[in-house]
Amino acid sequence: MRFVNNSVEDLKIAYVGGGSRGWAWGLMSDLAQESHMSGDVYLYDIDYLAAKNNEIIGNKIRGNFKYHATETIDKALLNANFVIISILPGTLDEMESDVHTPEKFGIYQSVGDSTGLGGNVRGLRTLPMFQEFAKAIEKNCPDAWVINYTNPMTMCVRMLYETFPKIKAFGCCHEVFGTQNLLKNILENKLNVGEINRSDIKVEVTGINHFTWLTKAQYRNIDIYPLFKEYAEEILLKEVSEDDHSGDNWINKLFKTSNKVKCDLFLRYGKIAAAGDRHLSEFCPNNWYLGCPENVDKWAFALTPVSFRKQELDERLKKSEDLISGKLDFQINPTGEEGVAQIKAILGLGDLTTNVNLPNMGQIPNIPLGAVVETNAFFSANNVSPIFAGDIPCDILGLIEPVVCCQETMIKAAKNRDLKLAFKAFLGDPQNILNIEQSKELFMLMLKNTEKYLSMYELDNFKL
Amino acid sequence: MRFVNNSVEDLKIAYVGGGSRGWAWGLMSDLAQESHMSGDVYLYDIDYLAAKNNEIIGNKIRGNFKYHATETIDKALLNANFVIISILPGTLDEMESDVHTPEKFGIYQSVGDSTGLGGNVRGLRTLPMFQEFAKAIEKNCPDAWVINYTNPMTMCVRMLYETFPKIKAFGCCHEVFGTQNLLKNILENKLNVGEINRSDIKVEVTGINHFTWLTKAQYRNIDIYPLFKEYAEEILLKEVSEDDHSGDNWINKLFKTSNKVKCDLFLRYGKIAAAGDRHLSEFCPNNWYLGCPENVDKWAFALTPVSFRKQELDERLKKSEDLISGKLDFQINPTGEEGVAQIKAILGLGDLTTNVNLPNMGQIPNIPLGAVVETNAFFSANNVSPIFAGDIPCDILGLIEPVVCCQETMIKAAKNRDLKLAFKAFLGDPQNILNIEQSKELFMLMLKNTEKYLSMYELDNFKL
Amino acid sequence: MRFVNNSVEDLKIAYVGGGSRGWAWGLMSDLAQESHMSGDVYLYDIDYLAAKNNEIIGNKIRGNFKYHATETIDKALLNANFVIISILPGTLDEMESDVHTPEKFGIYQSVGDSTGLGGNVRGLRTLPMFQEFAKAIEKNCPDAWVINYTNPMTMCVRMLYETFPKIKAFGCCHEVFGTQNLLKNILENKLNVGEINRSDIKVEVTGINHFTWLTKAQYRNIDIYPLFKEYAEEILLKEVSEDDHSGDNWINKLFKTSNKVKCDLFLRYGKIAAAGDRHLSEFCPNNWYLGCPENVDKWAFALTPVSFRKQELDERLKKSEDLISGKLDFQINPTGEEGVAQIKAILGLGDLTTNVNLPNMGQIPNIPLGAVVETNAFFSANNVSPIFAGDIPCDILGLIEPVVCCQETMIKAAKNRDLKLAFKAFLGDPQNILNIEQSKELFMLMLKNTEKYLSMYELDNFKL
Amino acid sequence: MRFVNNSVEDLKIAYVGGGSRGWAWGLMSDLAQESHMSGDVYLYDIDYLAAKNNEIIGNKIRGNFKYHATETIDKALLNANFVIISILPGTLDEMESDVHTPEKFGIYQSVGDSTGLGGNVRGLRTLPMFQEFAKAIEKNCPDAWVINYTNPMTMCVRMLYETFPKIKAFGCCHEVFGTQNLLKNILENKLNVGEINRSDIKVEVTGINHFTWLTKAQYRNIDIYPLFKEYAEEILLKEVSEDDHSGDNWINKLFKTSNKVKCDLFLRYGKIAAAGDRHLSEFCPNNWYLGCPENVDKWAFALTPVSFRKQELDERLKKSEDLISGKLDFQINPTGEEGVAQIKAILGLGDLTTNVNLPNMGQIPNIPLGAVVETNAFFSANNVSPIFAGDIPCDILGLIEPVVCCQETMIKAAKNRDLKLAFKAFLGDPQNILNIEQSKELFMLMLKNTEKYLSMYELDNFKL
Repeated sequence: MRFVNNSVEDLKIAYVGGGSRGWAWGLMSDLAQESHMSGDVYLYDIDYLAAKNNEIIGNKIRGNFKYHATETIDKALLNANFVIISILPGTLDEMESDVHTPEKFGIYQSVGDSTGLGGNVRGLRTLPMFQEFAKAIEKNCPDAWVINYTNPMTMCVRMLYETFPKIKAFGCCHEVFGTQNLLKNILENKLNVGEINRSDIKVEVTGINHFTWLTKAQYRNIDIYPLFKEYAEEILLKEVSEDDHSGDNWINKLFKTSNKVKCDLFLRYGKIAAAGDRHLSEFCPNNWYLGCPENVDKWAFALTPVSFRKQELDERLKKSEDLISGKLDFQINPTGEEGVAQIKAILGLGDLTTNVNLPNMGQIPNIPLGAVVETNAFFSANNVSPIFAGDIPCDILGLIEPVVCCQETMIKAAKNRDLKLAFKAFLGDPQNILNIEQSKELFMLMLKNTEKYLSMYELDNFKL
Repeated sequence: MRFVNNSVEDLKIAYVGGGSRGWAWGLMSDLAQESHMSGDVYLYDIDYLAAKNNEIIGNKIRGNFKYHATETIDKALLNANFVIISILPGTLDEMESDVHTPEKFGIYQSVGDSTGLGGNVRGLRTLPMFQEFAKAIEKNCPDAWVINYTNPMTMCVRMLYETFPKIKAFGCCHEVFGTQNLLKNILENKLNVGEINRSDIKVEVTGINHFTWLTKAQYRNIDIYPLFKEYAEEILLKEVSEDDHSGDNWINKLFKTSNKVKCDLFLRYGKIAAAGDRHLSEFCPNNWYLGCPENVDKWAFALTPVSFRKQELDERLKKSEDLISGKLDFQINPTGEEGVAQIKAILGLGDLTTNVNLPNMGQIPNIPLGAVVETNAFFSANNVSPIFAGDIPCDILGLIEPVVCCQETMIKAAKNRDLKLAFKAFLGDPQNILNIEQSKELFMLMLKNTEKYLSMYELDNFKL
Repeated sequence: MRFVNNSVEDLKIAYVGGGSRGWAWGLMSDLAQESHMSGDVYLYDIDYLAAKNNEIIGNKIRGNFKYHATETIDKALLNANFVIISILPGTLDEMESDVHTPEKFGIYQSVGDSTGLGGNVRGLRTLPMFQEFAKAIEKNCPDAWVINYTNPMTMCVRMLYETFPKIKAFGCCHEVFGTQNLLKNILENKLNVGEINRSDIKVEVTGINHFTWLTKAQYRNIDIYPLFKEYAEEILLKEVSEDDHSGDNWINKLFKTSNKVKCDLFLRYGKIAAAGDRHLSEFCPNNWYLGCPENVDKWAFALTPVSFRKQELDERLKKSEDLISGKLDFQINPTGEEGVAQIKAILGLGDLTTNVNLPNMGQIPNIPLGAVVETNAFFSANNVSPIFAGDIPCDILGLIEPVVCCQETMIKAAKNRDLKLAFKAFLGDPQNILNIEQSKELFMLMLKNTEKYLSMYELDNFKL
Repeated sequence: MRFVNNSVEDLKIAYVGGGSRGWAWGLMSDLAQESHMSGDVYLYDIDYLAAKNNEIIGNKIRGNFKYHATETIDKALLNANFVIISILPGTLDEMESDVHTPEKFGIYQSVGDSTGLGGNVRGLRTLPMFQEFAKAIEKNCPDAWVINYTNPMTMCVRMLYETFPKIKAFGCCHEVFGTQNLLKNILENKLNVGEINRSDIKVEVTGINHFTWLTKAQYRNIDIYPLFKEYAEEILLKEVSEDDHSGDNWINKLFKTSNKVKCDLFLRYGKIAAAGDRHLSEFCPNNWYLGCPENVDKWAFALTPVSFRKQELDERLKKSEDLISGKLDFQINPTGEEGVAQIKAILGLGDLTTNVNLPNMGQIPNIPLGAVVETNAFFSANNVSPIFAGDIPCDILGLIEPVVCCQETMIKAAKNRDLKLAFKAFLGDPQNILNIEQSKELFMLMLKNTEKYLSMYELDNFKL
């Protein structure tokens, strides 16, 4: 890496999970639009072919970066300046077990990848991988900045620091951006302010990933809170229409939300929850918004089935082929993600303040130190400093604290390969409404279903 | 008050709720057995006749103390050295509403006086009384030590300090003693140790009233934890017998517990919960042990109906008459309570360490400062110092934190006579499984039922 | 105030101490260069004529702002959007006593306005004024943002919050900028980096005003710490030359520093202290850098005499006359201060991160909550959020803690008009090397000397 | 170890430093008076002969304990129930360097074994020994309770926990007892209370060893604070008499204190400092009470010379011979130490509350966690729990904090055998009034003088 005027040349970016057909293409698109940086992107994936295909796709794009698939993670990481981690831990078959096995015991999950029973088992197989990543980073590029996009976000970032305490890692998630866009729309609709940029909606962010809260939302001299209160009351009165439930765009249906959960939470807690309803519901008492499919319908959001994700993956594989064959041209569009802006800020090419996931050093004093939290942070040259967020309001803390505790326990369990301790976390998860015996049965079943990716645990001899 | 050799003469004790036919008689009995203290006990009660009756009963006892009913609280408190507060806030009719109204909405409560929906509404009418007590103490006897026995314990003690920050108050509860007795029995049954005193079972206590936990339990060089684990596994395997559910001693039935809840909690959290199952269940997710009467049967504890309390009160009134008429002699027996021992220790007549409720000054670092917690404390001359208890284990904290938050909110609500804020606490109570609309309906109903004792709030114009 | 496109019109700024011939002219100059804001500046000063003169001078400048002297503070503050406070508490005669009276007892001070014996007595007369300011702001413009430039900075900002807890106030000081400029020069001299802007030197700031520390200093991918170490070793070896001690520019001499103190502190603590040596020395054990004039010479900084400040004031008065008469033209130059940039950021016209003085909410966990600390903060629409700074290194904390304690005590003393408590602070000040009796004598003398401005204390009857 | 009725038989106590002619004899005396415990005491000392002599002396005493000298520490520790550590680190020659070398640079020390320059260098050679002790305890008797009497107390206890975190260790010191005795005398003199026991003076203790403070002192219903204020004022007015400075009892002279330091501190801070003046003065700014011998005279305490300690040692060696030869009979007298009472309480033979040194788990929230502090603690079966002491008053914290920091740094330095870091601690010690160059010179000299006991550090190649 070297600075030439106001540009950085010869930057080295490593991409772990570089065979991805989602986030990887997004990065390619954002890098292609960037004129002040150039260099190389090394794509590592356990599916080498997928990485190789992305190398081909990436190098078809006219831009300042060259793409290289690597066969080992060491090769990708060696002397990297930045590392991006975005993997699918296991396959969608494992995710299917995470999300749908609990349904047999009456527990429904709308996403199932960050918290709750699915999130916990996903964590169990993901965390040993992140230990490996952290060790490889310590060996190959200890000074690199590491950006994680993988879920369960909180646990993944936590494990990076647990394994290599001096790592310079943070986790990124766009759920807050979505809420900023919602606020932007409310503002544009309710007041005559003209068109606004998302980034002009200034928010104070606090909480944990996928259960973040905006304790302040401001546009210039306008406090957005009173507007959101009006909006919340309107939304909760609105009947759930046919449009919300059907239509030919069944894809949207599976990801849709009406924001009713967000609005109900606002009336309960007086604060704006800043993630989609599908995520938020998984952090609340199970019977509030989830409970059963009928209740989910009532709250007008969706239980996203993994079968859909499988179908979508097929389409992306098809698209990948077409991009390689040239049947399809790669479209360069801004993704709305901030990864590239963050990289530039860290290089000293312009400060940035945005929300990220970092270990709690005290930015939220009433969350245990070390647990990963999501707040705003200030990005400048070789630096990401959390902005002080203060105590989480105590009623909201009552929902967050048990999740933090469960995840902290899961970290220890994964680190020590201790399935008994993992069960303790699973049993104590606030989404777990089963008794001890049922919990044991479900846990064993979910482990069995995903055992292919649990070989680092001594599953064979494990009994509860 | 003056010291003569190793005795204290001319002690003045004020008893708020001095017409009580339970705690007051107990105190009389314990004081009658005490040879190192003498003086006067002033009995104040809003039911003056009841206090007057207790004056008669008390003065029939041969002992070092004289009893005086007073018509005003000021007269009772003036220059008191100790103040005891033990009142029934409102009547059993109000308690009937607290406990049984939520049943119409499917929420069952086993006690309903310290937490949950009943505890909250009870708090709402009790807290303004405690503001008055605190003010009267500040005026009449600011240096007195104040012992509270009234529920909701946590909120009552909190309000004393909130109103008069320099008050020297603490709250006492015998639930931990009961658990020490259980441990004593387990020890005597399982090991050949001979007969043991409860006080020889050394415990480290932490938590909040009625949801206290023993993080350590030791007898001499024996760790009681492994014995309790055995016991817990046995109890959970044991079928609930007919004996547990019926028999002619229906009174016992209504207060019975099989300790199955305590044992299930042990297997979940690895720690000994130190209160009766009827209390413990009210601090856990509603569907674990309460939920519905059938579930309560399964866990072999009881939903104590207020009708029973009313019948019991009739019996006590009868007994009071008989004590006054001389038909019955007052029996002097040790109550097993520690009030008198605490008074002696504070006078400098012998140190004592026991569990009490005090504002958190840091004895439990991960509970908010100021909230009332229950830990051991060291009693010596003019001093009650909490013993450092350390952080509550995070999984147990997940259950306690929301209750603390709810109660802290209720304190603010009562102080500001703010029923909207009280509803926020009511809505956020972990026992509240209703949605916002149902919660509003139930809250309004419970207020209406108890309005006679809510005159300090502007209930007439109150709307949610 | 209203937004028109990307500009704000009709802004109202109140200036308390608006007769100033230093900071006020600087603000005029900076506002004159600003094209996105327009409005009115109201100048209030106890010396109305001075304010009036500044009104004349200000209105001669071609720009978007009009200047108005007001006879009352209420008039200046009413509905203000921003308030600037920059006063001289008392006159230079009082400052003369603060700085030079202790010399009679062998205590030398290089500045004497923020800490130490002079700082304490200055605080004593300043703090009641700041109580009045806070009350007037609460009454006239509770939503205004308040910028303080007055020393003792820490105590002044603290008292604003103590008096009106919801005030939106912060304190600004340019000492860190000076150190950034020094780092810029070191960088330009030692590496071939071309010309750099001060704001490109990214620093993490922590500490208290005039004793701030840079825990990190970075330019792009260059860590400045190793360069500073080289510099520190060079400077400490360098003989103090004649140039350092004499020359015709005696003004510079009186404010000069050779950075030897800063460099010695670096070798002691391994961190860069970010204020001038004259300030830094006042926070260290008295015998290190101060002690006696000969020691100060050795460390090659200056004990600034108040006589010089008096002479300088005469020159400014002369300049004021010339500006009014037109003999001299007002020169518009960037001052290097950030007040105007901060105002713009708070209006939502562009984010800014810079160092400011704010009450500690936890941004420095090992400094008591509430005490005013100096760290970076993020400025955006209607928001100033401290950036989390973490614990102060414990050895540096050992120097800061006593000062914080002394100042916290002084706040209480001033609030309660309690001169005994003020003496306790004075006695406990780390700069106070006198015994109790000498301390009493000196304290009484310093009070006597400045009694004209201590009328709110009952000085007549005061005895120690 | 086994319980027989209310007695413990077959107790095993290990004594590290068992050749001592002070503490060891005291323990023998106290054990000889104890009827509820019996067993064996294993004496280990690097001077095996000294241990052997003590074995002979101990076994001459008629009592329930047998004494055994061991040639290895492992043998002494194996399966011990209690471990006592009381060693002299190095010889009195090393202590002579610690105490008197700094005098050549103008720094006087009254004790020089717990803090300051002497305490630091003593720590440097002691801490590696304590690492070895902790490792040997972990290996041979991990469940044993460990009582340390060695100075520097704070650092020694800290290192035990640093090396073996699950160790059950605490440190004991009798300085607080001395202050309780002083208060007892004041009480007896000023009020007509008859004869009092030291233990009836109830005190709240906080601080660090040899700089502890009594935040409360009570006898029955009497607050001792106002009496102490009277006393302090009297003492400070009192002329230092000839008696204070001379007389034939020169031994007393060398340890004497007039309590003038304690009284001056009371007038400064309003709290009772609970150690002898010789210790207290070493924690205050050097020029207050130490400074120069003349100043020490003025404050009427003594700079204890190590030559005296050498002479005293000679006398003890003589006494040892006489005890062995039978020329002298061993006198059994209560020592006033509490070690035996503590052992009994830990065995479950009766609760005890007293002051001890323990790592800070939060009992003093504003001291860093982990640092060793001295507060009251409650001793019961297999348990020593600190009593919550609360925040140290901020002005006193200003004196303590730098010492804590210095000692924490020294722990790290010793652990990592890092002499550069040790110098950082030495340089930062509040007693160090030298500049960097002088500090280097003195540090190197003190290391050189004691190099025989610093072989674990690479002293040969060490340069500053």
